[in-house]
Amino acid sequence: MTTTPVAPAVPRGLAGVVVTDTALGDVRGREGFYHYRQYSAIELAQTRSFEDVWYLMLHGELPDRTEAADFAARTASLRTLPADVTGALPAIARASAVPGPLAGLRTALSLLGASADFRPVYDIDAGRRREDGLAVCAAVPTILTALHRLGRGLEPVAPRADLPHAANYLYMLTGSEPGPEQVRAIEQYLVSTVDHGFNASTFTARVVASTGADLAACLVAAVGALSGPLHGGAPSRALDTLDAIGTPDRIDGWIREQVLSGRRIMGFGHPVYRTEDPRSRMLKSIAQGFGGPLVDFAVEVEAQVEAILAELKPGRELHTNVEFYAGVVMELCGLPRAMFTPTFCAARMIGWSANILEQAEDSKIIRPAARYVGATPPQPVPAP
Amino acid sequence: MTTTPVAPAVPRGLAGVVVTDTALGDVRGREGFYHYRQYSAIELAQTRSFEDVWYLMLHGELPDRTEAADFAARTASLRTLPADVTGALPAIARASAVPGPLAGLRTALSLLGASADFRPVYDIDAGRRREDGLAVCAAVPTILTALHRLGRGLEPVAPRADLPHAANYLYMLTGSEPGPEQVRAIEQYLVSTVDHGFNASTFTARVVASTGADLAACLVAAVGALSGPLHGGAPSRALDTLDAIGTPDRIDGWIREQVLSGRRIMGFGHPVYRTEDPRSRMLKSIAQGFGGPLVDFAVEVEAQVEAILAELKPGRELHTNVEFYAGVVMELCGLPRAMFTPTFCAARMIGWSANILEQAEDSKIIRPAARYVGATPPQPVPAP
Repeated sequence: MTTTPVAPAVPRGLAGVVVTDTALGDVRGREGFYHYRQYSAIELAQTRSFEDVWYLMLHGELPDRTEAADFAARTASLRTLPADVTGALPAIARASAVPGPLAGLRTALSLLGASADFRPVYDIDAGRRREDGLAVCAAVPTILTALHRLGRGLEPVAPRADLPHAANYLYMLTGSEPGPEQVRAIEQYLVSTVDHGFNASTFTARVVASTGADLAACLVAAVGALSGPLHGGAPSRALDTLDAIGTPDRIDGWIREQVLSGRRIMGFGHPVYRTEDPRSRMLKSIAQGFGGPLVDFAVEVEAQVEAILAELKPGRELHTNVEFYAGVVMELCGLPRAMFTPTFCAARMIGWSANILEQAEDSKIIRPAARYVGATPPQPVPAP
Repeated sequence: MTTTPVAPAVPRGLAGVVVTDTALGDVRGREGFYHYRQYSAIELAQTRSFEDVWYLMLHGELPDRTEAADFAARTASLRTLPADVTGALPAIARASAVPGPLAGLRTALSLLGASADFRPVYDIDAGRRREDGLAVCAAVPTILTALHRLGRGLEPVAPRADLPHAANYLYMLTGSEPGPEQVRAIEQYLVSTVDHGFNASTFTARVVASTGADLAACLVAAVGALSGPLHGGAPSRALDTLDAIGTPDRIDGWIREQVLSGRRIMGFGHPVYRTEDPRSRMLKSIAQGFGGPLVDFAVEVEAQVEAILAELKPGRELHTNVEFYAGVVMELCGLPRAMFTPTFCAARMIGWSANILEQAEDSKIIRPAARYVGATPPQPVPAP
């Protein structure tokens, strides 16, 4: 609620205004570098498991071998949904058929948050919140893959506790055990996507957390923010661009037309990175490890976009963002396009949860002010 | 995402920091006055229908007679839920049995937002958003009353298009046509609750709206923020206080013990009002119009709390807030306590929707920054 504002004028959209301290990570846009806790996120993706990085986000340190095994077993045991939620998934899948699994996830998460195991209560303590976070993040891949399969008339595949997180995700999606190259590629993508500075959905999650609301309430809000087109995070759109171009001989004409008509080229440009997006570099290398015509085409499109932009918009640094090669890698691993953003979301749940837990330690609600600029009240209310 | 922050230091929780302009209304805490658009909210509650104020929030002007009749007929026609949502309500009510209708509403709204009529799409235009807002706000009472009845093993009562908004709400709740005094009392409460400056749930709704997300995504997030205990807005807690005190002879001892042990007295105190809460004054007068032992008891508790506070904490202005007499009025009108906060929420949907529509006109995403305060990266990642 507003009183007379006293704070100095701040940039539109609060750009650059520090709203909180965090020990979770940061993005250094000018250096093309981002990190989780004290480690390079890319180095983590290249060397550690998804579960290890999940542990790092929650605990601040990487696990030792025993801790890692315990944590992996613990989270694996949490993949099965409560019966209430499982029972509602067919209806949710039906009602969310058009927008797809991400909108369905929002509903299922809200339901999961209200179900007996996760019910919202006043004065949730930190331990309870942490347990909820583990349980929700472990359950999200089960929800997403079930919704996807139900939407195609297929039975959901029950989670397997003997598979690591990434392998189990691909298994639940397809019903067959994935190859190790696919698992490792998707695992690296998931690790690289866990968190990325203070983006709009992370901020949303923290605003809701600042009211003391339960974890699911915060995550449901974050999923909503992620669905906004200004947030970004839709790797399928980059792949749609490759489809729209079609063949190598059409690249030049297509890109020039986009640039000259002032349209955005999906998969290029980032609000923070002025250099190459470090996620893009890693994902390109993973894609090139697979090889094949799609990869060759993507690399060619990237090269021509950069060359044409250098010619038509000199001085404007515009490189591939995470979406471009993420789409290529997910396609190569057999993920259907409707699951690209949901897959991103499943990984980002870890970062959101860690941010919610951190925010909940702060007792101050996040509530800025608005400036009233309408007609001066009170004017007499006319009779009906 | 973060770059090096450049903005000046701002107060914790962004208190007083102006994040947007609004023409929807404001709260003048020192004057004990709040308004919707150019009119006193209390005067609107005393003289106009809920539908008229709903129209005012959306259009900026009160409707003339023809516009009012058209709008009332239009919104009444939108009370019936899509079959997808109706079909899922029993499962939602079952899974949300413990937290109750508000948590169920979050799920049902998310489902409604994804269902065929409201599916999220990129680049939603203002007209579409406005239509969605009407439809969602018209559907919320239907959802809430159905969830409440299903939770008690009763069949939902279908909405009646021939009743005004408030009367239909009470009708759907109980299955019988309410008396005119009850209808008018609840209608005044609903009007007085439509909006109240820039509170935490309103801010949440606007943050999600700033990403371009669909209306339901924004509202679902706002419901989550409202559920947080630091947000406030739980009139049943004030009534629970009256129950805890029990009888007039116990008031003095009970209040003194609360004050001396530093505990909050529910229903008293407000972060913005330094005077009496104008909503409380109006609701007290409505309650006194009904009369009876509960009202006498509430008035006596209020008088003794103020007297004891003046004695024990001189100089501290602490008056009843909206929750205190709102609980009394809702109890007098036969609303079950589990429906107090949901009823508040049904009215606030109007304010949230108007705020979302206003925010969506601004193309700038709301995304502040965080300051990284953890260990300096990059530290070499240890081998697993």
